[in-house]
Amino acid sequence: MPPRTDSRRRMLDAAAELFRAQGYHATGLNQLVAQGGAPKGSMYFHFPGGKEQLAAEAMREAAGRVLEQLRAAAQGAPDAATAIALVIDALADELVATGFRSGCPLASVALDASAQSEPIAAACGEGYRSWRDAIAALLHRHGVAEEPAAALATVTLAAIEGGLLLARTDRDVRPLRQVRDHLVSVINSGSAESKERP
Amino acid sequence: MPPRTDSRRRMLDAAAELFRAQGYHATGLNQLVAQGGAPKGSMYFHFPGGKEQLAAEAMREAAGRVLEQLRAAAQGAPDAATAIALVIDALADELVATGFRSGCPLASVALDASAQSEPIAAACGEGYRSWRDAIAALLHRHGVAEEPAAALATVTLAAIEGGLLLARTDRDVRPLRQVRDHLVSVINSGSAESKERP
Repeated sequence: MPPRTDSRRRMLDAAAELFRAQGYHATGLNQLVAQGGAPKGSMYFHFPGGKEQLAAEAMREAAGRVLEQLRAAAQGAPDAATAIALVIDALADELVATGFRSGCPLASVALDASAQSEPIAAACGEGYRSWRDAIAALLHRHGVAEEPAAALATVTLAAIEGGLLLARTDRDVRPLRQVRDHLVSVINSGSAESKERP
Repeated sequence: MPPRTDSRRRMLDAAAELFRAQGYHATGLNQLVAQGGAPKGSMYFHFPGGKEQLAAEAMREAAGRVLEQLRAAAQGAPDAATAIALVIDALADELVATGFRSGCPLASVALDASAQSEPIAAACGEGYRSWRDAIAALLHRHGVAEEPAAALATVTLAAIEGGLLLARTDRDVRPLRQVRDHLVSVINSGSAESKERP
């Protein structure tokens, strides 16, 4: 018999995948338990707050994984635009690999559950903020001044989120590629502009 | 007793509002019937395809209303950037007026129901395409060449969608304002660039 921590892990993984693909309300306890391969009772053992707690934890973990991706790309890439392009390409690949089911790990739940659940809203809000801060830090490190970096980070994240939504709806990654090309050009000219100033 | 068409109308309006705020799956038949002020039986009388048909029709109508907004802004504004800014400001006002419940009329349903329902996916996909085409036509009319206009229209729509999502999650319209300022500057320089060419 696998240790109890394994069943907690499997439930979190199943939750992240199902919530990402179809949102909070379409995902029933039975589906979570079936995909997580855990007995139904273990749900409330591991997550006394039930589905709401499971969702908030899954969103927090999913946000952390994207943050790691962003940081790894930032460390490996020669400039900010290349790092952002790498992350967008990885998201596009994931979208295609899952038959256009897996878009942004937070967006489906942010839209269908944040209004009714404070813990879920907080987890999604913190996730988005952490990504924005990481993008702003990346832009700032590559020469964009602090205030324009914060605004450009919001625009970058918004365009990626919208690109994921349109690509998913179209079942075609083209919108995401167009967003990538736009952001690469904007970020490159933003860094160049800042560097030209004294 | 009000005519039957009124109860159909009220159900569509209730559906558009509820689906926009909380997605497809969180919205139960009872809530639709209660908010639409119609007897439960009338749902299947007006919409033999049930909730799925109601959602597809509500999405189609909601997309049509945004398209009208886009066209009205395009007719009234002196240039493309001003028209886009007008539409974004109207969306931001609506978000604030509804306590950050009403973001994009399609996004919640596109994310939580498109994967399982062909008619709903088609309605959302057509809606997004119609907005993109209208934005591309607007940009082209104001001097952007056809191919860059199509790409810039996708980026514009993606940034607005992402801006709505972030503003809703933040309960703050700032992300949407930052998206607006970015798009105004990009569209203005795009139009100027195209006009400089022979």
